[in-house]
Amino acid sequence: MAALLLHSVNRSAQITTKHCFISHKVSTLARLQDGHVASFHNSAAHRWSSLPGARWLSRGTGVRFMCQGTAGRLPAGRSRRGAALVLAGAAAAAVVGFVANAGHFQRAEMASRVIQVAEQDDDILEKCKGFMSPPVTDVQVLQEKKGEMCTRMELLIMETQAEFCRALEKVDGGKFKADRWQRKEGGGGVSCVIQDSNVFEKAGVSVSVVFGHLTEEAAKQMKSRGKVLKGKDGKLPFCAMGISSVIHPKNPHVPTVHFNYRYFEIEEEDGSKQWWFGGGTDLTPTYLNEEDAFLFHNTLKEACDKHHPQYYPDFKKWCDRYFYVRHRGETRGIGGIFFDDLDSPSQEEAFGFIRSCAATVVPCYVPLVYAHRDDAFTAEEKRWQQLRRGRYVEFNLVYDRGVKFGLATPGSRIESILMSLPLTAKWEYTHEPEDGSREAEMLEVLRTPREWL
Amino acid sequence: MAALLLHSVNRSAQITTKHCFISHKVSTLARLQDGHVASFHNSAAHRWSSLPGARWLSRGTGVRFMCQGTAGRLPAGRSRRGAALVLAGAAAAAVVGFVANAGHFQRAEMASRVIQVAEQDDDILEKCKGFMSPPVTDVQVLQEKKGEMCTRMELLIMETQAEFCRALEKVDGGKFKADRWQRKEGGGGVSCVIQDSNVFEKAGVSVSVVFGHLTEEAAKQMKSRGKVLKGKDGKLPFCAMGISSVIHPKNPHVPTVHFNYRYFEIEEEDGSKQWWFGGGTDLTPTYLNEEDAFLFHNTLKEACDKHHPQYYPDFKKWCDRYFYVRHRGETRGIGGIFFDDLDSPSQEEAFGFIRSCAATVVPCYVPLVYAHRDDAFTAEEKRWQQLRRGRYVEFNLVYDRGVKFGLATPGSRIESILMSLPLTAKWEYTHEPEDGSREAEMLEVLRTPREWL
Repeated sequence: MAALLLHSVNRSAQITTKHCFISHKVSTLARLQDGHVASFHNSAAHRWSSLPGARWLSRGTGVRFMCQGTAGRLPAGRSRRGAALVLAGAAAAAVVGFVANAGHFQRAEMASRVIQVAEQDDDILEKCKGFMSPPVTDVQVLQEKKGEMCTRMELLIMETQAEFCRALEKVDGGKFKADRWQRKEGGGGVSCVIQDSNVFEKAGVSVSVVFGHLTEEAAKQMKSRGKVLKGKDGKLPFCAMGISSVIHPKNPHVPTVHFNYRYFEIEEEDGSKQWWFGGGTDLTPTYLNEEDAFLFHNTLKEACDKHHPQYYPDFKKWCDRYFYVRHRGETRGIGGIFFDDLDSPSQEEAFGFIRSCAATVVPCYVPLVYAHRDDAFTAEEKRWQQLRRGRYVEFNLVYDRGVKFGLATPGSRIESILMSLPLTAKWEYTHEPEDGSREAEMLEVLRTPREWL
Repeated sequence: MAALLLHSVNRSAQITTKHCFISHKVSTLARLQDGHVASFHNSAAHRWSSLPGARWLSRGTGVRFMCQGTAGRLPAGRSRRGAALVLAGAAAAAVVGFVANAGHFQRAEMASRVIQVAEQDDDILEKCKGFMSPPVTDVQVLQEKKGEMCTRMELLIMETQAEFCRALEKVDGGKFKADRWQRKEGGGGVSCVIQDSNVFEKAGVSVSVVFGHLTEEAAKQMKSRGKVLKGKDGKLPFCAMGISSVIHPKNPHVPTVHFNYRYFEIEEEDGSKQWWFGGGTDLTPTYLNEEDAFLFHNTLKEACDKHHPQYYPDFKKWCDRYFYVRHRGETRGIGGIFFDDLDSPSQEEAFGFIRSCAATVVPCYVPLVYAHRDDAFTAEEKRWQQLRRGRYVEFNLVYDRGVKFGLATPGSRIESILMSLPLTAKWEYTHEPEDGSREAEMLEVLRTPREWL
């Protein structure tokens, strides 16, 4: 349907958002699979209609766009206000664009400058076209700062989001809804969610890119080792970005997966930059399946081993320690890998490791979904799944550092932080599985983490 | 059934637990309503068979009881070991008792001393007979220390538990399961739960009485105003007790209620005692019903007004502030009263206020259950209830000071702390009620707390 609409606008049509601009030629859009285009535009319609703060200036036959509170970093040497003026004043060329708004499309004038930029940086632009939504940072800025780690990481997480969402759409048959949102204090994100679909009860894949200034105290809290950083007048410019995903399937024989890969950069008083990566992927089955556990851990180990022989054993242990529901004396699931504060051996090599990890999310998990999505299950097995979902909620709300940080951070998008919560969960008083049952077997593993390889 | 069993043992039979002793004559037990006796003994069977640490010494025709890790405070001037020895050595008299254990009863020898004590202090003993379970502290100790605030408060909360549970049993038709449990570090509790019953999805009414030693830091955290207390070698003997209840009904037109009344006592280095009361009762409807809100608040106001004209207005505001889900910008429900650190005008008067509050829990809430338990409801209304249950979970796990303190306290009984969580809850991504709907009306009230009187 949306794909049809695309064909009804002329070849040089541009997609714009109210908040930043990105040029996609119709010819390119038409090359993308129909489903993705539909999803992109349907979600864009929803997104654009719900975001506040944009003003439309009608002029002549078109609608001129005035950018307010731009989501991304700004072109080098240009203030936020300046960027808005560039857009507002760039109505000379007769570029016909369309804007999805409240379910219908509007033609919009765009600056010819945009096309020129796009043609010079085809590689980044081409990448962006495959994303679930325009990236958080203006494409123009990404192009101008393409060598910087912030840009490379943003492109990696947007790419991983798209790759994972598409793989899940294929196994589920449904479509992700992509919400692009802004953080008033700087930055924003793209949250993709499928809910109550065929295979998945709730699946969320979220990217966020936020920046601004931290107090020294907050900067200390961001690093798990609590290093003290010195800021100018106690303030430190920072940039934090990451991809985070939790997938809760309907069938109790398909495990829940979570992964998160993130990058932090903080500028100290003397202009030097502190940076580090963190992340991990971990599996939470309702019932133990040793083959699945092996495949999952082995895929992670292979990715780790390419970079350092100690990564897998160390990060596997770290994962078991981190995903521990202390008040229950249980780990959340059967683990995987988890690490934080990774700032060695070099930025390039650390990023290479993150790239390898990101590349494993599909092969780690999607085969398990195909293997079990059609498994038969009983009401008792569904009940056990719901009880384990309750424990998942307990971990996420009581211990998860990311959630705690998010809930306590002003301007956070709560729906993106809490999209990790399952659609449904259950708490029964003093539920204890019968000795020798498959439920008891699962609990035993959660109480005494195993080596899987 | 349990009542029948009672009649099959002779008139002088004693109920014992493995951990402490309490004498209940069969004649008295038989006077209690059958249902209560059944519930008491069924739960006792479960409780007694699951508690560790007791040794049985077979001797002659009976079973002699050796007390280990006694749950309650000990008789004045007697060490824990001493108490065990008193019991172990008190086999002279042929007192026939029965102990519920793994579903069958065993005869037990008991000390004749116990009967004598019981006969001297009929008032306290009589009270205890009406409880859902023997109190946490040995009845003998309660009798010996009957003038102390700890004893009076323990009797009040045990009494309130029984009164509230019986009222709920009457409206529901089901029976509470009473679990009596011990805390290794000192004290214990009695948790009464009904789950997936006729009217209630989950209803929990829990009493706990804990004591031991606090660090100065922990003592500071216990007081909401964070007063610094001086301990001997940094340690402060303390006693904390309270009743806490959350009732989640099935019908979305019956509101959820929560109440909690507690007493703390801390002994400083110089032997002086710091004490304070805290508590409150608050209502969380799924749909707004102004008549219900009025009845609920008015009942609380009447109780407050008997003690101080500022109590209701001040504690109503405190309640709205406390039960605030900050990350959602909503209160948990329509409030009620909440207060902490109440240590004036005198201990006697503060206790009198707590007693008035405790006396309101039935008239505050039970009429609302009768009024709405049979209301018709739609699937959409049930869905909204489940979403609101999700918010309830968020408040309890993220903000509730009692839950946070409990989860972080070694030796806490997690099932009693988390019995406040609903049986089922739901989280839908970006759910927003339609403008003008009853769901939107409810949200509006949660976003802007009202005066109800």
